[in-house]
Amino acid sequence: MAGNSFGTLFKLTTFGESHGKAIGGVIDGCPPGIALDFEAIKSEMQRRKPGQSSIVTQRKEEDAVQFLSGIFEGITTGTPIGFIIPNTNQKSNDYTHIKDSYRPSHADYVYEKKYGIRDYRGGGRSSARETASRVVAGAIAKQVFSTIKINAFVSSVGEIFIDKPYQDLDFSLTETNDVRCPDVATAKKMEDHIKEIKKQGDTVGGTITCVIQNVPVGLGEPVFDKLHAELGKAMLSINAVHGFEYGSGFCGARMKGSDHNDLFNPNGTTKTNLSGGIQGGISNGMDIYFRVAFKPVATLLQKQEMLTNKGEIIEQQGKGRHDPCVVPRAVPIVEAMAALVMTDFYLLNKMYL
Amino acid sequence: MAGNSFGTLFKLTTFGESHGKAIGGVIDGCPPGIALDFEAIKSEMQRRKPGQSSIVTQRKEEDAVQFLSGIFEGITTGTPIGFIIPNTNQKSNDYTHIKDSYRPSHADYVYEKKYGIRDYRGGGRSSARETASRVVAGAIAKQVFSTIKINAFVSSVGEIFIDKPYQDLDFSLTETNDVRCPDVATAKKMEDHIKEIKKQGDTVGGTITCVIQNVPVGLGEPVFDKLHAELGKAMLSINAVHGFEYGSGFCGARMKGSDHNDLFNPNGTTKTNLSGGIQGGISNGMDIYFRVAFKPVATLLQKQEMLTNKGEIIEQQGKGRHDPCVVPRAVPIVEAMAALVMTDFYLLNKMYL
Amino acid sequence: MAGNSFGTLFKLTTFGESHGKAIGGVIDGCPPGIALDFEAIKSEMQRRKPGQSSIVTQRKEEDAVQFLSGIFEGITTGTPIGFIIPNTNQKSNDYTHIKDSYRPSHADYVYEKKYGIRDYRGGGRSSARETASRVVAGAIAKQVFSTIKINAFVSSVGEIFIDKPYQDLDFSLTETNDVRCPDVATAKKMEDHIKEIKKQGDTVGGTITCVIQNVPVGLGEPVFDKLHAELGKAMLSINAVHGFEYGSGFCGARMKGSDHNDLFNPNGTTKTNLSGGIQGGISNGMDIYFRVAFKPVATLLQKQEMLTNKGEIIEQQGKGRHDPCVVPRAVPIVEAMAALVMTDFYLLNKMYL
Amino acid sequence: MAGNSFGTLFKLTTFGESHGKAIGGVIDGCPPGIALDFEAIKSEMQRRKPGQSSIVTQRKEEDAVQFLSGIFEGITTGTPIGFIIPNTNQKSNDYTHIKDSYRPSHADYVYEKKYGIRDYRGGGRSSARETASRVVAGAIAKQVFSTIKINAFVSSVGEIFIDKPYQDLDFSLTETNDVRCPDVATAKKMEDHIKEIKKQGDTVGGTITCVIQNVPVGLGEPVFDKLHAELGKAMLSINAVHGFEYGSGFCGARMKGSDHNDLFNPNGTTKTNLSGGIQGGISNGMDIYFRVAFKPVATLLQKQEMLTNKGEIIEQQGKGRHDPCVVPRAVPIVEAMAALVMTDFYLLNKMYL
Repeated sequence: MAGNSFGTLFKLTTFGESHGKAIGGVIDGCPPGIALDFEAIKSEMQRRKPGQSSIVTQRKEEDAVQFLSGIFEGITTGTPIGFIIPNTNQKSNDYTHIKDSYRPSHADYVYEKKYGIRDYRGGGRSSARETASRVVAGAIAKQVFSTIKINAFVSSVGEIFIDKPYQDLDFSLTETNDVRCPDVATAKKMEDHIKEIKKQGDTVGGTITCVIQNVPVGLGEPVFDKLHAELGKAMLSINAVHGFEYGSGFCGARMKGSDHNDLFNPNGTTKTNLSGGIQGGISNGMDIYFRVAFKPVATLLQKQEMLTNKGEIIEQQGKGRHDPCVVPRAVPIVEAMAALVMTDFYLLNKMYL
Repeated sequence: MAGNSFGTLFKLTTFGESHGKAIGGVIDGCPPGIALDFEAIKSEMQRRKPGQSSIVTQRKEEDAVQFLSGIFEGITTGTPIGFIIPNTNQKSNDYTHIKDSYRPSHADYVYEKKYGIRDYRGGGRSSARETASRVVAGAIAKQVFSTIKINAFVSSVGEIFIDKPYQDLDFSLTETNDVRCPDVATAKKMEDHIKEIKKQGDTVGGTITCVIQNVPVGLGEPVFDKLHAELGKAMLSINAVHGFEYGSGFCGARMKGSDHNDLFNPNGTTKTNLSGGIQGGISNGMDIYFRVAFKPVATLLQKQEMLTNKGEIIEQQGKGRHDPCVVPRAVPIVEAMAALVMTDFYLLNKMYL
Repeated sequence: MAGNSFGTLFKLTTFGESHGKAIGGVIDGCPPGIALDFEAIKSEMQRRKPGQSSIVTQRKEEDAVQFLSGIFEGITTGTPIGFIIPNTNQKSNDYTHIKDSYRPSHADYVYEKKYGIRDYRGGGRSSARETASRVVAGAIAKQVFSTIKINAFVSSVGEIFIDKPYQDLDFSLTETNDVRCPDVATAKKMEDHIKEIKKQGDTVGGTITCVIQNVPVGLGEPVFDKLHAELGKAMLSINAVHGFEYGSGFCGARMKGSDHNDLFNPNGTTKTNLSGGIQGGISNGMDIYFRVAFKPVATLLQKQEMLTNKGEIIEQQGKGRHDPCVVPRAVPIVEAMAALVMTDFYLLNKMYL
Repeated sequence: MAGNSFGTLFKLTTFGESHGKAIGGVIDGCPPGIALDFEAIKSEMQRRKPGQSSIVTQRKEEDAVQFLSGIFEGITTGTPIGFIIPNTNQKSNDYTHIKDSYRPSHADYVYEKKYGIRDYRGGGRSSARETASRVVAGAIAKQVFSTIKINAFVSSVGEIFIDKPYQDLDFSLTETNDVRCPDVATAKKMEDHIKEIKKQGDTVGGTITCVIQNVPVGLGEPVFDKLHAELGKAMLSINAVHGFEYGSGFCGARMKGSDHNDLFNPNGTTKTNLSGGIQGGISNGMDIYFRVAFKPVATLLQKQEMLTNKGEIIEQQGKGRHDPCVVPRAVPIVEAMAALVMTDFYLLNKMYL
């Protein structure tokens, strides 16, 4: 109940601080009989890990996951899958400068006030390192509900946007560039912009769009556990996320009903899809798509004011190895959380069958 | 688990279809010893109820709540508060035209596919009538956690926006006009626009902004149950909501870190508040504010195409009494859901005390 | 979380005090498409209701259940089933004598200490009247998982026991006598004993045995949510229950492994069934059977010492209309709770199919 | 939801098979600021571990727990405590003889039927090795709610019983003998009996009694989550447990109300305590005591019939290193589960303060 579990039937519990011995998690409710593709899991981990390209943090972390249970001779057994990811490259002394002070727009201050104690090294539990465990679980979830296709990509960095609908994009190009933007020309601009920002010791925000295809009709529970409400919670639980919209989103709030309604085709599909594949909280078989807003990373490689635990404002030079823009590495995290939500609803829906 | 409960310690379970005998709910976990202000509950119900002004639906529903348990001589006892709201003005025959057909952008089709059966009268369970139960629970939650102040208001209707920061608004003006917009000049424009839209038999979307003040530091649980993630889920669970953003929201995704970071004052408050009162999922004592996007109501008083259960596309004239714009009546619903989230986290946080 | 819900996928939430306006509940997660047999529900209610025979309390309560939602034209729709049972025959003034004092072995004292307030009329929330809501939900659960057969019966009253294994009993005789004991000769002795006890203004305890047949292999989850652990919790949650044992139970603790092990037949059934149909928390297809111990009812029609809220010990004559022995009326409650547990695991198990 | 988590606010999730790389768990909801006594944790692990005396299994397992998170400089931080216990002494080849066959009264058969696959080595997930993780969590729970005292002890082995009330026992003697029976003369008889049984290659059942003292009034939630219902579920979730009774238990079912009621003293304590410290599911401040029945271990070192996955009955000689009687090693497990329940209710009760 302290908030470190996600999901109902397919349930992930995570633990671990960025500079402890290891992070990890337990997946409870993974169906038995799945011959896991470990290469696919590793590949997702590679997409998230630091140091993978010149526009992300240069920290080197191996992020090698060790499975401890729930898998026998490569096949899931239905028992909980415990796993750990050792923290190998910690450089804790990078963080002694924040032992007694709180960085702006970080969780340092609120953790100290809430718990009366905090592991200050690298953000501790509030570090985005925790999301590595989500990527492991998401990679397995994708194999459980393998008929759907989940494609996330960077749709904006700062003021630079893809100006096409997702239907005009070729998702196979997403991994061809370091930004993870399938519109190659826009990707180049984004990459240049991130490099420029990095030179300034600054950071920049961005958005990720995610498209889920081949979804059967009927997933999601009405009222409080609407499919898009769970997707929204899942995305908002990712570090640095400040907004979520699906289908027509905030644009829809400007529209008239006569323009917004999705008229039916005789086979139950719709001519337009401003509903984003969800009606009344339940999937209608059309593409589900949503957009997630990430604020700029708060850790700057500039001088910046901090608050000490004695109530003084001091100025300190940021150090460490940080991402100038978080969205390229957040793409697999968005996909992982989407996979967790979809797989959970897929299993829940079996009670109706 | 079928999604009709919300909250952990302060938990609401709702039931009821728009044209059944009654809707209602159970509040489990309300602390004992609270002398309930029943007038305050009634007043919240009045704000939500149909027929309250010329710009909302002209359905007349009394929405009189009957409390059945959990209250003894006006005081909460700590046992579950069961309540019902009888459905008095049902006019079920308004809906026989949709018995065998599915309205566009409604939940008719997906309910039929998911469950194999649906109560077609007035949207059944997918009707926004269900939110009356949420308003009851929210009104009680406000009395449990009475030190915080929750103010929601209409911030846009169609293309008409309030162009001021919330700090420049006087929330005491929200209830002075039918739109529930505290900027009176803008309210007038919104009202005119809604009347125009109504004349056309059309509908229009809008946004609601909500500000929560006097929040103590430390509410919210890190990782999956971040305060803003639960607020987001709560809002996205309201009918017609397509988007949620808090603090800098989608704008924050365009910004640089050096502009976005909220620098501290010596007392732990911050000079700016782009974080929206939440750091790492935990309240930092500053105002919490967020914005919710509502799509236009799907029921039009125009001719519109529908799909029959035989796979035919037919054209039908919309009838009934519907809202041309949902946001004025959704203001108390947004506040109620915010109150549920905040009160739940307030109670959860007591384990740390 | 305040403990008024039971179940995971098939989930009952109850509310209501014995002398409030009504008690009731919400069943969330009932599968759609079930044409409910309302006579069967009524019949279960009749078995539990007061005043049905000379050996139970002479209170007259109609216990007429009103369904408010989740059922359309007699068929479940998959949406939550809300229901109420009005309290019609309250005689609250029967209870003014306990307003300021605590009866021995009742919940009066602990409610007052825990909540600082209590609805003293008739035990309020702690009254066994709450179990009427469980019987409604159990009667529906039986219709959801209709292939299994659940038979509970009174196996002892005071020192009078059935001295046969359940296999030698004819369950169709259970309802032929007021005690609900299928061994008719023993039933007569029990009935005489209860009448004698009643004359003394005293009460007596007893046990109920429950047999669940036609259970498929594979229900139950290992580790914490073992099938017998949930059955045990379900039974221990019934008022006055002090013990639970399944299969060989406490007798098994005296045995040797070589006598206790259930050897297999080639078809996977077992030659003996000391395991009580459950291995490692999972049903093995054999009969599930368990025994539940009920303490004697604490309300006596004798003079008895009570504690006042001023710390005085007073002597008071018990009044009201109470059961001299609770087990005859508890038989349908035991069956109802068993049905809730079995149906929940049946639905949960579908995720493996 | 697949049943590998226990608790609401203080929540343990476990994972791991007896012959995988490691078992372990995550404790979510441990309050911050507790300076952990690691020696106390180690000491509890020693009490449970195999090979500690001549009357338990001679398997040697180190059971060294490694904490991975949630603790900073020896103090809990409020974030989840992840831990692992490597499996060091596995001897998997001990188990190849059961790869294709099912032992009687084990979980082999039901796991195979439920999941379609099983890790057959040493019982896999159904092995009591899983309880080592519970002991870790229980040892921490005891430090969270450190004012109560939990004492479990062996009260019977086969037909040998302690014939005194627990009030006449000196709990400090429990650890002075290998059986963990505080009545030293009876302990000697039990020990001799276990040795005799062991010689025969047989096993024997027993009971454990647990006494919880210094409990504040008011813990436990009424209706479904009664304190004794959760204690019952906790105990019944331990391997081999077939029964649970608290207070007067099954004996209470034979008694009359006039003998059973616990009359008050003026200070709110009671003169007798047949209620076992719990009224209406809520602690009343008196000692809580209960008794747990363990069946005899199913693994015998004798020839025994087994079922093969081809439907043949074969006879096989049992091998491996197994406990002739499980109760001496189960004492710390009973205490651990009791500690988890009590600590969870202690934290839950804070919402009323």
